[in-house]
Amino acid sequence: MKIGILTSGGDCPGLNAVIRGIVLKGTTSYDLEFVGIRDGWRGVVDADFFPLTRHEVKGLAKVGGTILGTSRTNPYEGDRGGAENIKATLAEHGIDGIVAIGGEGTLAAADRLAKDGVNVFGVPKTIDNDLGATDYSFGFDTAVNIATEAMDRLRTTGDSHQRCMVAEVMGRHVGWIALHAGMAAGAHVICIPEVPLSIDEITAQVTSAFERGRAPLVVVSEGFKLKGQEEAYSDKGLDAFNRPRLGGISEILAPEIERLTGIETRATVLGHIQRGGSPSGFDRVLATRLGLHTADAVVDGDWGSMVALRGTDIVRVPFADALGELHTVPLSRYEEAAALFG
Amino acid sequence: MKIGILTSGGDCPGLNAVIRGIVLKGTTSYDLEFVGIRDGWRGVVDADFFPLTRHEVKGLAKVGGTILGTSRTNPYEGDRGGAENIKATLAEHGIDGIVAIGGEGTLAAADRLAKDGVNVFGVPKTIDNDLGATDYSFGFDTAVNIATEAMDRLRTTGDSHQRCMVAEVMGRHVGWIALHAGMAAGAHVICIPEVPLSIDEITAQVTSAFERGRAPLVVVSEGFKLKGQEEAYSDKGLDAFNRPRLGGISEILAPEIERLTGIETRATVLGHIQRGGSPSGFDRVLATRLGLHTADAVVDGDWGSMVALRGTDIVRVPFADALGELHTVPLSRYEEAAALFG
Amino acid sequence: MKIGILTSGGDCPGLNAVIRGIVLKGTTSYDLEFVGIRDGWRGVVDADFFPLTRHEVKGLAKVGGTILGTSRTNPYEGDRGGAENIKATLAEHGIDGIVAIGGEGTLAAADRLAKDGVNVFGVPKTIDNDLGATDYSFGFDTAVNIATEAMDRLRTTGDSHQRCMVAEVMGRHVGWIALHAGMAAGAHVICIPEVPLSIDEITAQVTSAFERGRAPLVVVSEGFKLKGQEEAYSDKGLDAFNRPRLGGISEILAPEIERLTGIETRATVLGHIQRGGSPSGFDRVLATRLGLHTADAVVDGDWGSMVALRGTDIVRVPFADALGELHTVPLSRYEEAAALFG
Amino acid sequence: MKIGILTSGGDCPGLNAVIRGIVLKGTTSYDLEFVGIRDGWRGVVDADFFPLTRHEVKGLAKVGGTILGTSRTNPYEGDRGGAENIKATLAEHGIDGIVAIGGEGTLAAADRLAKDGVNVFGVPKTIDNDLGATDYSFGFDTAVNIATEAMDRLRTTGDSHQRCMVAEVMGRHVGWIALHAGMAAGAHVICIPEVPLSIDEITAQVTSAFERGRAPLVVVSEGFKLKGQEEAYSDKGLDAFNRPRLGGISEILAPEIERLTGIETRATVLGHIQRGGSPSGFDRVLATRLGLHTADAVVDGDWGSMVALRGTDIVRVPFADALGELHTVPLSRYEEAAALFG
Repeated sequence: MKIGILTSGGDCPGLNAVIRGIVLKGTTSYDLEFVGIRDGWRGVVDADFFPLTRHEVKGLAKVGGTILGTSRTNPYEGDRGGAENIKATLAEHGIDGIVAIGGEGTLAAADRLAKDGVNVFGVPKTIDNDLGATDYSFGFDTAVNIATEAMDRLRTTGDSHQRCMVAEVMGRHVGWIALHAGMAAGAHVICIPEVPLSIDEITAQVTSAFERGRAPLVVVSEGFKLKGQEEAYSDKGLDAFNRPRLGGISEILAPEIERLTGIETRATVLGHIQRGGSPSGFDRVLATRLGLHTADAVVDGDWGSMVALRGTDIVRVPFADALGELHTVPLSRYEEAAALFG
Repeated sequence: MKIGILTSGGDCPGLNAVIRGIVLKGTTSYDLEFVGIRDGWRGVVDADFFPLTRHEVKGLAKVGGTILGTSRTNPYEGDRGGAENIKATLAEHGIDGIVAIGGEGTLAAADRLAKDGVNVFGVPKTIDNDLGATDYSFGFDTAVNIATEAMDRLRTTGDSHQRCMVAEVMGRHVGWIALHAGMAAGAHVICIPEVPLSIDEITAQVTSAFERGRAPLVVVSEGFKLKGQEEAYSDKGLDAFNRPRLGGISEILAPEIERLTGIETRATVLGHIQRGGSPSGFDRVLATRLGLHTADAVVDGDWGSMVALRGTDIVRVPFADALGELHTVPLSRYEEAAALFG
Repeated sequence: MKIGILTSGGDCPGLNAVIRGIVLKGTTSYDLEFVGIRDGWRGVVDADFFPLTRHEVKGLAKVGGTILGTSRTNPYEGDRGGAENIKATLAEHGIDGIVAIGGEGTLAAADRLAKDGVNVFGVPKTIDNDLGATDYSFGFDTAVNIATEAMDRLRTTGDSHQRCMVAEVMGRHVGWIALHAGMAAGAHVICIPEVPLSIDEITAQVTSAFERGRAPLVVVSEGFKLKGQEEAYSDKGLDAFNRPRLGGISEILAPEIERLTGIETRATVLGHIQRGGSPSGFDRVLATRLGLHTADAVVDGDWGSMVALRGTDIVRVPFADALGELHTVPLSRYEEAAALFG
Repeated sequence: MKIGILTSGGDCPGLNAVIRGIVLKGTTSYDLEFVGIRDGWRGVVDADFFPLTRHEVKGLAKVGGTILGTSRTNPYEGDRGGAENIKATLAEHGIDGIVAIGGEGTLAAADRLAKDGVNVFGVPKTIDNDLGATDYSFGFDTAVNIATEAMDRLRTTGDSHQRCMVAEVMGRHVGWIALHAGMAAGAHVICIPEVPLSIDEITAQVTSAFERGRAPLVVVSEGFKLKGQEEAYSDKGLDAFNRPRLGGISEILAPEIERLTGIETRATVLGHIQRGGSPSGFDRVLATRLGLHTADAVVDGDWGSMVALRGTDIVRVPFADALGELHTVPLSRYEEAAALFG
């Protein structure tokens, strides 16, 4: 059996460890043959394949990025896209099935292809941890570690200057990175998309921390919006204070916090450093295990499903059950953390 | 209500984060009062207490070690030990209950004290991850990260010199650290207490990796024993090869591997660096959450139980259900990993 | 003899190690007495002093920030400022001299005070490495390590997405951090204040790297200006492309590079994470040695001078010889590095 | 001109960065051609060469180990060794000169070959920093950082348990790593080969630190010998206390310290983790610069010399001036550090 592997969507620590896990298990336990597909679905559509042997995946568990390249191509678009074209392309190259490693969009495309008769198996990839079917996804732990270490550094500067530091972390729709890194670094305010706060609620906590002798640390998800002003953001030209929109939410919050509290305040947008580089031990183990179990599932012909972490077990979940619902931070988890800075 | 907190047994990253979580939640949500107990059960027996306020736990989430100190004292030993003496001491100081943060031994003592009428609540602490009631315990993730990073370093030396490197990690009775760090670092042999291997099985895998062009990496739990020679170890004076016993198991394995395979082989015992220092993001979050929930449990008067992680939830487990069974690596998990170097 | 110690200007890894070095040497070798001065020159003017004993500096070598606090107060300003007022304040509190740890501005003030008869000794502090009298200043090595590690991470994302990544590092007037971190991380373009480049020169190198199959990495000092458009920056309202000025230089360069080359390009401003947190080994040793030698100089009454690193030696330099000239990157060092991406 | 490059002796972080620097400068500035020589002098003797292009050295600045492999082969030994044979081999393969990256032994062989008419240029490599001609050698800074971080971790365990921790670091003949890492980590005793101490001098300092409330940290170079008992070590079978010699010096010191002071004491041998893995920023810059200047020297035909760091400059030094004298820690530097724990 010959299997193609692709990675799609944003970079995420652990992609290479998944690939390695699939190939090692597939070749040593099952005699599978693999081809790498270049740049996500683009490589499927363009038949951009190359042999992927055990030798190619040597030492990959610790290597960030993806040796397969990635893109945001939609497999249903373009002249050569669509299920029928793809089935023809795969048949032509003797490829029996595809493992697609990607996020919500990638897996939704995989689901549609599977329904249209293409053999596709999924591996969930989301650094934001926003997929409901899996307790954690690889890359998240690494991002939390990087954000935590960065905030440890910001705290010493805040302490020395008696400043408020605002750290903006990843999380477009969900606040998991902000929640975990904020708890880990001892933030005094955690602002996440799931829990709108007003600027007054934020400054009240900043002032309270400052009065207790702390240099306030505010962690904010990139997707956070101020309470009552969610609409303002729909117009990309203006921010919540009717100023031209530039930079991230932290760059909006910092001057407002300084203006309202009188405390010198600085913003830092952590940005892309959260998604590159070598994965943590946790992510290497999780990604490797997802890869090993994917090889099993492929041999079982369990197409139309994906692997997921439940507790300490790796399980398989049909796409139909896995997709559609965003894995948001429950209010109980936010309130649990809020006790730390209440 | 006034609560004493103690840490007992070996150092573990996250102890201070637990203490901080308990104190912050207890003081801001419940108006509890806390005293620190110095050096584990010794401080209970000796009434060595000091006030533990919100101020004392500032910034502790990231600090390794324990501000309370630790010891291996048994609370039932000595003139002033035993449940009746302890009840009297606590009453004298107006202490309503104790939170004991410790491993199997500590929690067994806590269980006995609870049965004898002392108000004790437990927080499981085991860097080896050998307690059955909790999916993971804090400190384990940090130890895996440190061991993984160390083995990443050892690999480059192995590759440069075409040597076999043997890394000995913690794990007296269970092989979790070796299993996870070995998977993360791409080890070619993983030796754990749960799965005895003969020296021939080990050297076969070493030779196989070497012939594939790899510098073989062997990770071994300190508690691993060679198959068929488990008895030899009961006599502490001699090792499995009838030589005076000195150093760790890696220092026994390395010369044997070199002798039998002809491949230059070096041992490194990671030792105490695995248990000190700043906790990982994962461990800070887990330890903090265990602390927060402990404050809830204390207010509920849920004595005789401990907190535990199940999936992504923090739950309470009666000591009776939590203790007695070692959390070993299941054979299925070992075989899963073995596919990587099969 | 009683000595006051102050830290002034921006936070810098190693400040606490200097303080510890002075106090340990001063108390164990010389029987000096120390007071901490809070928040730089503000604490001198306001007589905000506190006893600084050996106990206070325990374990400080690895701690980021400054336990003394810092500010940008000018000692010659305000009602209570000026040399005469300060001499009176110091006399009143029995303080025989001041050690001022700070950058160009701080040391210039120290020089003026020394000329006006105040006993002041200096320790150079500049994370940008822009002081001429010392080969390296503490904090610089840590900043280079942090920037290097961040760029290692950015590279994997660039490689996965075939993107150009632009990393903005500290360096208002000099490009040392960009030069060193750029060499260490394998940047394809290094943009520093000392060497203006046109946007065409930059994009030529970006395109050349891209065509060799690399994901181009551009490192840029915050103080870099495009050739021929240096004037544009004097008007803070507009950038070099006549757009409202927002964000750092990297946020100006990234869209221009993308527009001109057609290569997807992303900017990351590393910002404050470069200046906080635990110092590297090199910086701890350098800062500690500067502190130790400062205690010697104070005992010698060598006021009006500062310590400096020359080769591997710590020497003393009169303020008059140390100040006034910016320690820029020589063209020869830039050209040396340029051979890597030529 | 075609140049061969070899790495010889122990692994050292920065070897690959040197190789990359030579090849990039040599190919982009000078049109040199390179071959890699496998496993040090063995590859010269066996004519084990392979083409080394710009493509091969991509991304190598951060990669630990050496892509060329290494060995301890002496080029004057064996049937095919010796200057005449080597000259014939090089001529046969059109190789005009050799760059040898290695330590004292490697460079001594290079010197002899140069005198015998082989074109050899040297790059000093010593993680111990024991070569006199260069202020620092690459790899040393990385080793100090790793040892410092490990001791930071050991300290928290020491503090929690009120134990004395003994850390054994590299340094067979010189104590630079122990000196710098000890200063950086705040050690209470630093034991180096250059300064014999008696066990009583050591325990006096341990006890003094303990009585001040510290958990004593002792750092010891592997080559340290107890005062008055240097002879004992010449007999490898017995240690200074007439016991069978096993393990490192730390494993001799720890039980003696515990016995004499009554303070629980633990030894950790850091071992090979100090020499593998990714180099620090400092070492990447130093190694890269040494490589760049080596390309210049080769083009100049400056055979029989090596590159070296003097202050912030890279210079060339004839082998004759560079070799023969061990770069030991001067007593003044030891006494400087001793003020910290006096």
